[in-house]
Amino acid sequence: MAGSTLGTLFSITTWGESHGPAIGVVIDGCPAGLPLSASDIQPYLNRRKPGQSRYTTPRKEDDTVEILSGIFEGKTTGTPISLMVKNTSQRSKDYTEIAAYYRPGHADYTYDQKYGFRDYTGGGRSSGRETIGRVAAGAIAAKLLSELGITVTAYTHSIGPVTIDYDRFDLSVMEQNAVNMPDPIAAKEAEAHLDACRARQDSCGGIVECVLKGLPAGIGDPCFDKLNANLAKSICSIGAVKGFEIGDGFAAAAACGSTNNDAFYMEENKVRKKTNHSGGVLGGISDGSDLIFRAAFKPTPSISAPQETVNKSGQNITISIHGRHDPIIVPRAVVVVECMAAITTLDLLLKTIPSRLDHLKTFFQNLSPM
Amino acid sequence: MAGSTLGTLFSITTWGESHGPAIGVVIDGCPAGLPLSASDIQPYLNRRKPGQSRYTTPRKEDDTVEILSGIFEGKTTGTPISLMVKNTSQRSKDYTEIAAYYRPGHADYTYDQKYGFRDYTGGGRSSGRETIGRVAAGAIAAKLLSELGITVTAYTHSIGPVTIDYDRFDLSVMEQNAVNMPDPIAAKEAEAHLDACRARQDSCGGIVECVLKGLPAGIGDPCFDKLNANLAKSICSIGAVKGFEIGDGFAAAAACGSTNNDAFYMEENKVRKKTNHSGGVLGGISDGSDLIFRAAFKPTPSISAPQETVNKSGQNITISIHGRHDPIIVPRAVVVVECMAAITTLDLLLKTIPSRLDHLKTFFQNLSPM
Amino acid sequence: MAGSTLGTLFSITTWGESHGPAIGVVIDGCPAGLPLSASDIQPYLNRRKPGQSRYTTPRKEDDTVEILSGIFEGKTTGTPISLMVKNTSQRSKDYTEIAAYYRPGHADYTYDQKYGFRDYTGGGRSSGRETIGRVAAGAIAAKLLSELGITVTAYTHSIGPVTIDYDRFDLSVMEQNAVNMPDPIAAKEAEAHLDACRARQDSCGGIVECVLKGLPAGIGDPCFDKLNANLAKSICSIGAVKGFEIGDGFAAAAACGSTNNDAFYMEENKVRKKTNHSGGVLGGISDGSDLIFRAAFKPTPSISAPQETVNKSGQNITISIHGRHDPIIVPRAVVVVECMAAITTLDLLLKTIPSRLDHLKTFFQNLSPM
Amino acid sequence: MAGSTLGTLFSITTWGESHGPAIGVVIDGCPAGLPLSASDIQPYLNRRKPGQSRYTTPRKEDDTVEILSGIFEGKTTGTPISLMVKNTSQRSKDYTEIAAYYRPGHADYTYDQKYGFRDYTGGGRSSGRETIGRVAAGAIAAKLLSELGITVTAYTHSIGPVTIDYDRFDLSVMEQNAVNMPDPIAAKEAEAHLDACRARQDSCGGIVECVLKGLPAGIGDPCFDKLNANLAKSICSIGAVKGFEIGDGFAAAAACGSTNNDAFYMEENKVRKKTNHSGGVLGGISDGSDLIFRAAFKPTPSISAPQETVNKSGQNITISIHGRHDPIIVPRAVVVVECMAAITTLDLLLKTIPSRLDHLKTFFQNLSPM
Repeated sequence: MAGSTLGTLFSITTWGESHGPAIGVVIDGCPAGLPLSASDIQPYLNRRKPGQSRYTTPRKEDDTVEILSGIFEGKTTGTPISLMVKNTSQRSKDYTEIAAYYRPGHADYTYDQKYGFRDYTGGGRSSGRETIGRVAAGAIAAKLLSELGITVTAYTHSIGPVTIDYDRFDLSVMEQNAVNMPDPIAAKEAEAHLDACRARQDSCGGIVECVLKGLPAGIGDPCFDKLNANLAKSICSIGAVKGFEIGDGFAAAAACGSTNNDAFYMEENKVRKKTNHSGGVLGGISDGSDLIFRAAFKPTPSISAPQETVNKSGQNITISIHGRHDPIIVPRAVVVVECMAAITTLDLLLKTIPSRLDHLKTFFQNLSPM
Repeated sequence: MAGSTLGTLFSITTWGESHGPAIGVVIDGCPAGLPLSASDIQPYLNRRKPGQSRYTTPRKEDDTVEILSGIFEGKTTGTPISLMVKNTSQRSKDYTEIAAYYRPGHADYTYDQKYGFRDYTGGGRSSGRETIGRVAAGAIAAKLLSELGITVTAYTHSIGPVTIDYDRFDLSVMEQNAVNMPDPIAAKEAEAHLDACRARQDSCGGIVECVLKGLPAGIGDPCFDKLNANLAKSICSIGAVKGFEIGDGFAAAAACGSTNNDAFYMEENKVRKKTNHSGGVLGGISDGSDLIFRAAFKPTPSISAPQETVNKSGQNITISIHGRHDPIIVPRAVVVVECMAAITTLDLLLKTIPSRLDHLKTFFQNLSPM
Repeated sequence: MAGSTLGTLFSITTWGESHGPAIGVVIDGCPAGLPLSASDIQPYLNRRKPGQSRYTTPRKEDDTVEILSGIFEGKTTGTPISLMVKNTSQRSKDYTEIAAYYRPGHADYTYDQKYGFRDYTGGGRSSGRETIGRVAAGAIAAKLLSELGITVTAYTHSIGPVTIDYDRFDLSVMEQNAVNMPDPIAAKEAEAHLDACRARQDSCGGIVECVLKGLPAGIGDPCFDKLNANLAKSICSIGAVKGFEIGDGFAAAAACGSTNNDAFYMEENKVRKKTNHSGGVLGGISDGSDLIFRAAFKPTPSISAPQETVNKSGQNITISIHGRHDPIIVPRAVVVVECMAAITTLDLLLKTIPSRLDHLKTFFQNLSPM
Repeated sequence: MAGSTLGTLFSITTWGESHGPAIGVVIDGCPAGLPLSASDIQPYLNRRKPGQSRYTTPRKEDDTVEILSGIFEGKTTGTPISLMVKNTSQRSKDYTEIAAYYRPGHADYTYDQKYGFRDYTGGGRSSGRETIGRVAAGAIAAKLLSELGITVTAYTHSIGPVTIDYDRFDLSVMEQNAVNMPDPIAAKEAEAHLDACRARQDSCGGIVECVLKGLPAGIGDPCFDKLNANLAKSICSIGAVKGFEIGDGFAAAAACGSTNNDAFYMEENKVRKKTNHSGGVLGGISDGSDLIFRAAFKPTPSISAPQETVNKSGQNITISIHGRHDPIIVPRAVVVVECMAAITTLDLLLKTIPSRLDHLKTFFQNLSPM
């Protein structure tokens, strides 16, 4: 596909720019019969929406989702679900200056190189608003997974040098602080760090962690479509993500086999693992334990401190970026990570069904020809 | 696709198990006219081959490549290139015991869950020998990239706690040590660490780093097919990889925008960057600077120290894995990473061509209808 | 993909039902720099629109296209183009009766079997309105092809037993009659046949022919992605199409090699063919001559004459279908065939570019790294 | 994919040229647990093999299949199945003359245009031997379908002007004549027609018909992946196929709705159809009745009668093609059509499984996390 479609059986196609009339997504392959309304999707968009805290852009957007197709009498029909969010707060005049130069850390230069020119208003397609379609689609994927007993939960793992302490881990506090951290003390430290960054006109990076619970064993294909490989693509396709790791991740590279292997044992006639260094996959296939991964986000590239760059006339210049920008991407990106994880896992889960002839026979014995 | 095919225009389909008659790959979409013979491919396979150093399994395999299709009079024809390597050192009797239980850190349990049973000889499809097809295909991708002025180079970045020092970076020493490190002093420390691991019947993880030079700006698509996203999938699809990062990667999560942004400047009428924290991509598209990424490998799960696990009868048991296993995966994985990077980058490079109408018109003006 | 996406490099994803709020398409992979506005697309939609003649449903729809993304300052940006047409003439009350039974020749029964239930208003996703997205996308593909010197023209070849006479072939009269036939005499006979069908509450089938001129040689891949194979899928995916043939098609099955082969000859230093029985492809690859194919459409299944069928309670019943239906599909399907041909040919044309290393080298010599 | 891979969940990748060392296929996505050995595949290859009758090339090939991967202890493992057939009767010296000119009706000219040169020995990749991979893969698809109660049967429907009479239809005689016709009288007439063609150094076209029985309702996706659309692509991708039709096909274009619609009725509490003009699909989805389609094959282009053409130096010449060629393609193509139908139907059947949430829930209730 041409790059804006992801997935094989449950696939999403996103479209839209920051300052166009609207932004949206088409979800194809959603199984029929799922009860669905805008009220299932809007809470996810609200979590992503700007203006939720003092660390997000003051740009005002309602981000109200409209369902244009695929639902009949309150249930999905199995046909494409088209979702649209209108852009209401375009301020194109902010961007005329930006058109003339390349902002460091942004995609201005690479878009110009690839396409010959670019939509410079609000970052065009490279804007963070591109994630609206991902989140709207992810809300549906998450609801479908929950019908199968699977939950997906992401949260802020670290902001700059501040990392959560698992001894204080408490999901319930996550939405009570401005940084979406499930640790009240780390949250306060992170806010202090962010305030300091902002005071010197700077921005900050961070890490999002995501956990899937209830996943059956057997999801993922052995070779290129490993569950962790597809998650890596899906998560690294979020703008500003610079790294992905599953289970112990980069720490496993410094470990020994004796400590990194997860021992199996029997409990209540079920196979269990004593530890979960692997993060829930073995050989690219889910093992039935919690799936855990992390994504590293770079600092927001738009900062108001002076920066050196070049303009389109080929001159060295110094710029200072003003406008409406988040000093940190991570808190609003939490729901994006959660949604991409749901979309990708659901797609592989659906692909897994026909992997065994005995399962196929059971499935088809209830269907019959004329 | 069903999981053993990767790529859109330059695509590879791998097949084969550790102890089957052979293992191989079909490369589809290789442009016509590339001079190619087995001598272009064999050196890559030799770098991957066991028995190269005291840290690799003593299993003896020639791993001689046979070209079965796609070449005519010494050049690629544009049709599928089928490559095969015969397995010659199968020792199935080694594996009868393994059939009865689940090795920790291996895919035994997940294959059984997914497929109902598994080929337990030598790990079957989850064996490291699965990478033979990747390496054979990668040799072709790398040759094609080199015809376009692009080089791909991977090396060992760290082994356990030992990391290379860039002040001593010297690619020429990489093949003079048993760990493929481009730093002679780190290499010796790494060997000492490996010897210690082996002495206590243990294994060790590590990190591979890879650099692509000469890549033009504009490779990669803005949304899901970002160059870094597709590389993430491709690299994380290598068995034992637990993490991927590009540029500063996870370190960027702890950084500030002011230090993480790469300033543009003009030099000899060309746009350049003062630093390369981004690792060569902006907005998922190559910016023309060096592309740099790293992959984290977990320790070899097969260790001869005793481990707890369960057998297929549902009993808790203690096992000790004997047989032919590398104490570390990384040195032999270096060429695998290099090859996957070449394959994925070439595929996106080919997809990039029709991104501009002006380029298309130039291209087609030389072609004409009857 | 899940079935509503077509194409690899130039791909389209359609969505929408007959009686939902809107219907639309996302086009991904359109090269950047193509001048494009609604005025390029609307004329194609107008050709498809109901109410154009006395043989089309009196349902009133403006079918006005809105461009929601992908255009900046009047040109395509290379990012997804989202097009939407609002449904304005839904009359859901017409369809309550239909909900209870299965109309012969319609997809009512198969949707219920596949999805467990169906959107019965206006045929839902199986409505002819589903082609709106195809036509809107095809208008863009056709414009892009025309920039490369390629034209796509479809017309009515036959209606019931009435077929055009190539001795009277005149494209200019095609839009002057109600059946889109490029033969004024056949058009009159066809209209008389249609009037007779309608008088007995019946409907009628027909054939659309399509010609592509200016196509360079070399488009299409040798094995599964033959140009004619991909066209066959694309055309047969139009509702009501029951057959596809290229060149002499089924007539070739009754021919001999001596008459069916097209002799090559030289003219003005160019290779030409004396005949075109092949329809412009050899081995699945365009040969540079006109590409010619035909599509057979079944009669409109909705007729007001009484028909036997069953209801959802499992009773045999007799029905008579009222409502707004065309007595023939073909005249409005002409533009749909043209558009699907443009979309599929463009996609393969873009895929063809990297088929030769010499072409690749020429292409990349103008691009350079930093 | 680059054109030699077909299918989404059950996918095949073919490779090989007429005169290379071997020819083969990789099947990916075959469900695990299917009993499979070479004896399931060889009979299909034998039906395709040359030398079966006086109407096939005297080229001697054993076409013995070798299974290289994907089977363990007599059953499929769910991993890629690699099949190879060695070419044993290459006679390259036959083809040196052909290298210098373009044979009418062959792909010589188009390959040269697309790739810059071609493998001219035995037609290279455009040879009929390319279908070996399709047949080997189709044998597996057919076996899997038969496990689900679905049969696929193709036969010769017509040769030149001679067509079978359904009143004499008898599948048991099909393998008793040289033309694979299920009508003993038509078979004799067809043989007489073929003898006459050969006497004047000419060749002949024909039609293959294929029937699938036992298919449950619900297979196929509503939009681009209609069952008939995917079959159209799959069948038209066979070399020499010029047309595809399902059910009444082109005859439906001349029919009326009142006769073309298939009336539903109840029998033994099941929905049935009184007729099957639709050929087993409605709205692109199987309706549970027999699926019936036809493929038109052009005459063998290689004839020994003199033909006009051009050589690579741009001169008009007259040629006469000698060598080993079938005077008709159809009898050996019967098994190819059957195999492509099996492959494509199986793929869509597997994709159909997750179309309903209620089915998904039932499926997953038996699987559970750790």
